[in-house]
Amino acid sequence: MINPLEYENARKRTMDYFEKAGIVLRDDEKQTIEVADFGLNKLETIGLEIVTYVNTSRCCAKELVMFPRQICPQHRHPPYDESPGKEETFRCRWGEVYLYVPGEATKNPKGSVPEEMNDVFTVRHEIVLRPGEQYTLMPNTWHWFQAGPEGAVVSEFSTRSRDDLDIFRDPAIKRVE
Amino acid sequence: MINPLEYENARKRTMDYFEKAGIVLRDDEKQTIEVADFGLNKLETIGLEIVTYVNTSRCCAKELVMFPRQICPQHRHPPYDESPGKEETFRCRWGEVYLYVPGEATKNPKGSVPEEMNDVFTVRHEIVLRPGEQYTLMPNTWHWFQAGPEGAVVSEFSTRSRDDLDIFRDPAIKRVE
Repeated sequence: MINPLEYENARKRTMDYFEKAGIVLRDDEKQTIEVADFGLNKLETIGLEIVTYVNTSRCCAKELVMFPRQICPQHRHPPYDESPGKEETFRCRWGEVYLYVPGEATKNPKGSVPEEMNDVFTVRHEIVLRPGEQYTLMPNTWHWFQAGPEGAVVSEFSTRSRDDLDIFRDPAIKRVE
Repeated sequence: MINPLEYENARKRTMDYFEKAGIVLRDDEKQTIEVADFGLNKLETIGLEIVTYVNTSRCCAKELVMFPRQICPQHRHPPYDESPGKEETFRCRWGEVYLYVPGEATKNPKGSVPEEMNDVFTVRHEIVLRPGEQYTLMPNTWHWFQAGPEGAVVSEFSTRSRDDLDIFRDPAIKRVE
């Protein structure tokens, strides 16, 4: 869990990134930025900052901020009910992000994970996204991503988002309380 | 139809707006900006400039540029096959855009249409969108929109886009050749 002071610090840093990326938020959005530490209590290493613009039964758009070297841990979006699961496109707006998906492990990758967590990052095929570059992930695909040394701002365009259904590779993770 | 010189001018102006809005495009995207005059051959009055980031069977994201006072004419996205039709969210990123939907006609609206086209703009309830403001339109809803005096940059987050199915209020319009 993040305490109120950590939240407020992370919220303010997140706004700095949006400003650098030239992304305008409303006051109510600035006040309710989501700071996810995935229940691991090491936000600087494993975490994600999120503004959700819209999330209807059919369609979702979010803006993601990642602090330097911050990691969104490995997960997938499984099928549910009548849905094949969440499909999502990541478009880098600012900074640099390293996305990892199934496929041949990249030699000398740009990203790295804490050694003690090595086992819970099993997909190692690297896609580097710089501003304007994007990648579309089909549902139920294992993936994780990490910001470069300056951090990153990434737009996510997707079908409905159901964070409560996400499956994480690390059993210690809780995405939604 | 737009001639090659008109296209090139519009393309370059569109890039200026993206730059003002701080939106980074790849070179291939810059080269293939869509300039839609809706077959009316008066782009400055009725037109839209579009970059489509992604458009799969489930999900679509576009970036729209509108020149000052430019109008995207009244249309709706009808149901087709198994789909209820396109649902879309417009989020203003830069400038100002006036969106018109069904409802009580707004007195003293900010937008205006050419007098000779008055009949083909029948929904007149105005929603003003400034940077950070957004509006979600359900499928099959009549709508049109116009940029303010400085122009506008608008993100569109939606379900699958099928421009070929759009129904325009003005029978003179051809969206897709």
